[in-house]
Amino acid sequence: MKAEILNPFIQSTMEVLQTMAGIEPRRGAPRLKGGGESSYDVSGLIGLTGQVQGFVAVSFRESAALYVVTCFLGEPVGTVDAQVRDAVGELTNIIAGGAKRVLAQAGYDLKISIPSVVVGVNHSVSRPRGVPCFEIPFETDAGPFSVELCLKLEV
Amino acid sequence: MKAEILNPFIQSTMEVLQTMAGIEPRRGAPRLKGGGESSYDVSGLIGLTGQVQGFVAVSFRESAALYVVTCFLGEPVGTVDAQVRDAVGELTNIIAGGAKRVLAQAGYDLKISIPSVVVGVNHSVSRPRGVPCFEIPFETDAGPFSVELCLKLEV
Repeated sequence: MKAEILNPFIQSTMEVLQTMAGIEPRRGAPRLKGGGESSYDVSGLIGLTGQVQGFVAVSFRESAALYVVTCFLGEPVGTVDAQVRDAVGELTNIIAGGAKRVLAQAGYDLKISIPSVVVGVNHSVSRPRGVPCFEIPFETDAGPFSVELCLKLEV
Repeated sequence: MKAEILNPFIQSTMEVLQTMAGIEPRRGAPRLKGGGESSYDVSGLIGLTGQVQGFVAVSFRESAALYVVTCFLGEPVGTVDAQVRDAVGELTNIIAGGAKRVLAQAGYDLKISIPSVVVGVNHSVSRPRGVPCFEIPFETDAGPFSVELCLKLEV
């Protein structure tokens, strides 16, 4: 996957967390996912169509989801309820939308779907065989989250 | 949601199960989802963009997923492994692709993303507030599955 595709998603994630939640996440090195799947508790998912086709998943452990949403909303949330699901969907949408704008400026024609939010202890998110997927780990004071970018380029 | 949008997904689901897995699912009445979320163990998700924007989720309890995939592959599968995830993604893709073709013939401009597959005991799939979502229940000899269609029309 080209860095010019990957980087806008990394940059957008950092900016959205900083500007909308006041959080400075620490970013780990992106890794190409192999056969193994990571486990999460809350995931925001958005489909991408057009020249950049695939999906992006913003996935949290529960503690990190509650922390990020608390900072995003400016009020404490204690359980993964409808408000938290909405907020995770909204954050995922803003992250994907920011990356889309940068990619559009670079000449890529793509569209993003509306987000879905999966809630379930220890769930995994996988993609079709043969579709490359990068997992970008982030660390917050309340635990990790990750952005998974699974896509193929249509020329 | 117009019946002309909903029906192609129902029709495609019935046809794909019948022709590709030899299963005749019994269909229940579509219901507009309220605040409550249903629980599943395996879900295939595909984003829709264009005039029909949203996502479709094909969600199974584990027993129904293993039954459908066993019939689809023509060989017994006993656990939700990589092969089952791939098969659920493929079935979701064929269902959404079939509905897309019918909608395109009816004049709707839409694209579908590649599928993601969520595996996790008792997970739920929710959509942004204000986006209507229909849940279409199906019953197989090994338990229920459902197709959730969450979308808004862009004119």
